[in-house]
Amino acid sequence: MIRVGINGYGTIGKRVADAVRQQPDMEVVGVAKTRPNFEASGAVEKGFDLYAAVEERKPLFAEAGIDIAGDVEELVEESDIVVDACPSGIGADNAEMYAEYDTPALLQGGEDEDVVDASFNARSNYDTVAGEDLVRVVSCNTTGLSRLVAPLQEEYGIEKVRATLVRRGGDPAQSGRGPINDILPNPVSLPSHHGPDVNTIFPDLAIDTLGLKVPATLMHMHSINVTLEAEPDAAEVRDLLESQSRTFVIPEWLGLDGAGAIKELAQDAGRPRADIWENCIWGESVSMEGSDLYLFQAIHQESDVVPENVDAIRAVLGEADQQESIERTNEAMGLDEGLAPTRTAAEAPADD
Amino acid sequence: MIRVGINGYGTIGKRVADAVRQQPDMEVVGVAKTRPNFEASGAVEKGFDLYAAVEERKPLFAEAGIDIAGDVEELVEESDIVVDACPSGIGADNAEMYAEYDTPALLQGGEDEDVVDASFNARSNYDTVAGEDLVRVVSCNTTGLSRLVAPLQEEYGIEKVRATLVRRGGDPAQSGRGPINDILPNPVSLPSHHGPDVNTIFPDLAIDTLGLKVPATLMHMHSINVTLEAEPDAAEVRDLLESQSRTFVIPEWLGLDGAGAIKELAQDAGRPRADIWENCIWGESVSMEGSDLYLFQAIHQESDVVPENVDAIRAVLGEADQQESIERTNEAMGLDEGLAPTRTAAEAPADD
Amino acid sequence: MIRVGINGYGTIGKRVADAVRQQPDMEVVGVAKTRPNFEASGAVEKGFDLYAAVEERKPLFAEAGIDIAGDVEELVEESDIVVDACPSGIGADNAEMYAEYDTPALLQGGEDEDVVDASFNARSNYDTVAGEDLVRVVSCNTTGLSRLVAPLQEEYGIEKVRATLVRRGGDPAQSGRGPINDILPNPVSLPSHHGPDVNTIFPDLAIDTLGLKVPATLMHMHSINVTLEAEPDAAEVRDLLESQSRTFVIPEWLGLDGAGAIKELAQDAGRPRADIWENCIWGESVSMEGSDLYLFQAIHQESDVVPENVDAIRAVLGEADQQESIERTNEAMGLDEGLAPTRTAAEAPADD
Amino acid sequence: MIRVGINGYGTIGKRVADAVRQQPDMEVVGVAKTRPNFEASGAVEKGFDLYAAVEERKPLFAEAGIDIAGDVEELVEESDIVVDACPSGIGADNAEMYAEYDTPALLQGGEDEDVVDASFNARSNYDTVAGEDLVRVVSCNTTGLSRLVAPLQEEYGIEKVRATLVRRGGDPAQSGRGPINDILPNPVSLPSHHGPDVNTIFPDLAIDTLGLKVPATLMHMHSINVTLEAEPDAAEVRDLLESQSRTFVIPEWLGLDGAGAIKELAQDAGRPRADIWENCIWGESVSMEGSDLYLFQAIHQESDVVPENVDAIRAVLGEADQQESIERTNEAMGLDEGLAPTRTAAEAPADD
Repeated sequence: MIRVGINGYGTIGKRVADAVRQQPDMEVVGVAKTRPNFEASGAVEKGFDLYAAVEERKPLFAEAGIDIAGDVEELVEESDIVVDACPSGIGADNAEMYAEYDTPALLQGGEDEDVVDASFNARSNYDTVAGEDLVRVVSCNTTGLSRLVAPLQEEYGIEKVRATLVRRGGDPAQSGRGPINDILPNPVSLPSHHGPDVNTIFPDLAIDTLGLKVPATLMHMHSINVTLEAEPDAAEVRDLLESQSRTFVIPEWLGLDGAGAIKELAQDAGRPRADIWENCIWGESVSMEGSDLYLFQAIHQESDVVPENVDAIRAVLGEADQQESIERTNEAMGLDEGLAPTRTAAEAPADD
Repeated sequence: MIRVGINGYGTIGKRVADAVRQQPDMEVVGVAKTRPNFEASGAVEKGFDLYAAVEERKPLFAEAGIDIAGDVEELVEESDIVVDACPSGIGADNAEMYAEYDTPALLQGGEDEDVVDASFNARSNYDTVAGEDLVRVVSCNTTGLSRLVAPLQEEYGIEKVRATLVRRGGDPAQSGRGPINDILPNPVSLPSHHGPDVNTIFPDLAIDTLGLKVPATLMHMHSINVTLEAEPDAAEVRDLLESQSRTFVIPEWLGLDGAGAIKELAQDAGRPRADIWENCIWGESVSMEGSDLYLFQAIHQESDVVPENVDAIRAVLGEADQQESIERTNEAMGLDEGLAPTRTAAEAPADD
Repeated sequence: MIRVGINGYGTIGKRVADAVRQQPDMEVVGVAKTRPNFEASGAVEKGFDLYAAVEERKPLFAEAGIDIAGDVEELVEESDIVVDACPSGIGADNAEMYAEYDTPALLQGGEDEDVVDASFNARSNYDTVAGEDLVRVVSCNTTGLSRLVAPLQEEYGIEKVRATLVRRGGDPAQSGRGPINDILPNPVSLPSHHGPDVNTIFPDLAIDTLGLKVPATLMHMHSINVTLEAEPDAAEVRDLLESQSRTFVIPEWLGLDGAGAIKELAQDAGRPRADIWENCIWGESVSMEGSDLYLFQAIHQESDVVPENVDAIRAVLGEADQQESIERTNEAMGLDEGLAPTRTAAEAPADD
Repeated sequence: MIRVGINGYGTIGKRVADAVRQQPDMEVVGVAKTRPNFEASGAVEKGFDLYAAVEERKPLFAEAGIDIAGDVEELVEESDIVVDACPSGIGADNAEMYAEYDTPALLQGGEDEDVVDASFNARSNYDTVAGEDLVRVVSCNTTGLSRLVAPLQEEYGIEKVRATLVRRGGDPAQSGRGPINDILPNPVSLPSHHGPDVNTIFPDLAIDTLGLKVPATLMHMHSINVTLEAEPDAAEVRDLLESQSRTFVIPEWLGLDGAGAIKELAQDAGRPRADIWENCIWGESVSMEGSDLYLFQAIHQESDVVPENVDAIRAVLGEADQQESIERTNEAMGLDEGLAPTRTAAEAPADD
């Protein structure tokens, strides 16, 4: 059993903790948190040992009647690997502690690439991180782009990617974030930093990205152009994307018109927290004009990196090869069942 | 076992079907649907027998490869009771069919009160509907108001209720509904119809309501004033509300500032579809000025009537008394576990 | 001519500067600003002398090529009165400077009441501030409530006011403010501070208020209950409100359903910045249940205090009596023309 | 004087009427409207003769006390040209009437291209529509794209345009339109119809477009890629765009981060209805990667076609050449003054 510590128990950390617990070859040593709020209380209810991330704040937990198993340093020491899901920038600060206890660690995509030894996406570069000390699981948007780029690159070759990322302004519970009624170029200067981030996974890829921020909370939306080095027809590209393990090509007959409908589907499917771990690509949108591929994909900012973190644990520790790990992760999380049949129900196999 | 048919499998119907299936004394005969969309597909995946609500559209299901168990009339005939969760107005149209097969039926709150024999809220008038043929489970807002009125009425007496209902513009997947950036008096003429609707449960209650519509999708928000016939202190009222079975009095320490945070909590708690069946009352907001009680409560428009439908089944068929039914429903659905400890964790019992 | 200095040239300051300039008995000495942005540039384009509010930042204006007329202290010295429209809290900090130069000053509603000698609303207490050194023009919401309370109090007597303020999350250009998709009790604890603020104008009024924040930018919306000491019929109350100088009772035939439509009307009417200086009361909503009056009113947070600031200048300096001042202000601003006929066009006088 | 009739007096019609009235060589014969609402009332207040667009509804105007100058046919007969600003599809229906009275007419961009003799954009193809009977002023988005394409095409040649149009869900007063909290691919199938629409102005241009709809009301946002046939540096391209008559290249120092800020600027500048007739291009966003140009531009859906309609009048009637007309239109509307200095204030000429 791989002993995994989770440092930071917010949007990403709590999801990773649940996913790790579901893995047959992993166990959660504990989770670390800075203060006793509803998520700390939830961790205890779920039976996770809770560690105090900040020494001085331990009394606050006591006051709130929440038992503490120890300090974060103990968690790091007892773990084979730590998933650091602290807010952006804190992960970098924690790197020294992980080094001190000689515990490999995964940071999240909000950290700078030069803080880490390598960046990671399960589909794209699983084999490159074995034995590294500090590995970054790239951000939700970069994960979504990487999953799309990998098969296209392998199958057709890519001349250039141009992507407009229409990003949600904040997560559903982040009530302090805007905009309320605006569409914001963000960042204004182009190309945006998202392209270079994809280059940490695909160093030689030509990619230009543009970012916007809009008043929505559910998912990011990517408006994608890929100039291929071949001219497949759209149906062929669609087949390729449907065959991938973490893409959900939305069939027309489902009638899903946006992120709200996708989330409804995920709720009905019984997904925990209505999470959508897959890239959601509108099948109808997949189209070719000459060598130019176009499509729309929606990315669930809160959860698409969760299975990636699970795989990164095995990849760094060398505990499984790529295919084994992805399959084990998907099966344990229920990702392999899919959100819905991707073909019309009439065409779908009876037991799907 | 009570054999329950569900006619209409949308927002309410699919939730009621799941909740009925969880009851130890009920089984779902089947669900009826008008057309083969993602919800129809989901029903089949969950193992519900699917009946065609519209004869002429049966071929559409065949085309989509979805097996049909029969026509809706057969469903009605085979059921001890039908929960009609069709869109507003269709329930009234269906009344004749239910009468023809001599099957009692529950309609939803979108139907007019004069279509039915009685209106129902489990906390408030459970005992009044036994043996009726056609009973209306009142709307989400009226359910929320009734749960609040009942204990206050019993404990202190009510001189008058004045409530402003700040309603969500549409549900999360209803992408065609607005407003985008406005606050709409709705209806403009006052008092609104919501007050008279509460009077179908509490005929003698003095209540005036005002309705607004805003660009939000998660929950309705009620700004409540109740002029009591007594002058309890706020803590006493809060204790009373905490003691109710389907109210969740939000403790300050949880730090929940709105509907987004409540939904996050429900997701973390593993609630199906992140549903919130309880009135969510901000504990900190409960206050008394003389005999005037003020408070804020959030109401989950998609799900607060679900346990009410389950109870209405037993109430109409005379299969259990009020307390038995409510407890059985709550336990089967997991409602009895609560969303979070309502007291500070330090004060909460160890096993809560 | 009254020489008026404007300290702070943002949302309120720039509007007050324009309105003061339009008055026949006033002139703008200059406006003070902390930094050279588009509003500073706009001030210069409009021919206002620009003063540097912060000594150390003067070089920034030079760098931006914007001429500075002097320091804010000079502006204060040269003015008969200063309108302080700085961000909340800064006005209080500036009080000492105004005292030093013996220049009376108006602060805005974001300042605490105990910072000032008196609070002001033109309709309600014009006569009480003559000769005061530091006077606060109450906030947009309090102004809107005061204009409503004053005639009702005079005509019928008021037993109690209960108001729910559904507030816009931010102004249209405040892209950093939320919420995006939520309805927030704000503040959560009740009654809110808005009631006590109205008491600075009506010390003996019984008033309880509740505040919410929603994802809208155009106007605040008030859901109002006033328990009167009489039982007039609704038409009579509506007549009373229509007769007021700064209330616009929206007639049914205009078909205005919310703030967006009101702003459209203001744009069409040629109002500067589409400003709406009046309380906008839906005529159809004005209703009586016994002695309980109910109505909805929309309040334009960016501009309803502008005519109040103009009147406060004359009131503090003793330059005109209430009626003279209000009429002069209204006429100079074009407020007297109204946004639209308040009766159906058929009933309206031919020359309206 | 060119005698212009306006058929349809809504969002576009009322703006075109005002702009035509401002032209030294034009007069408004009258405006036609289907029913007596606040816009009809506003037309009368502005002194426009009002014609009834639907014979049977004339009594409604009488009831509302609004004088009618005649039927729409009379308006058509008395006009040298008609601007048809009716809702999409009605313009096509009206074509027969215009033919019957031998009055040339301008339709709006919501009509199909095959209904008209030619499509029009002042910057791009002014000279091609002289003498035509039925000319379509292309839509707000196509106008915005055409103004951008024209100079780039002329100066550098264009290999391909790829544009993502992030469209506002509805106009500010369209409270019934959504989405509230979503990002919708719209249309889902790619490329969208916007590209072919640009081809009605630039028949040989290679252009692929993608459309989205978001919860915002103020302006559309275009995320633009143009692969040029040359490799100018970004500063050169920016100079080119700044030199155009109806593009506003937003300088960094203004600090405008989105549509809300642009509208604020337009309000401060005293623009009627805060209209923004120009393409608003973020100067900082203009960038070159090899031959790939990227930039963001915001398009005011309610008004960018207004000066185009004015020019189309002269173009169709052969009353002025392109440069004369554009200059005359701009000067009469105040468009030539610009929204703000486009260079840093320090660099701007003193009298700008």
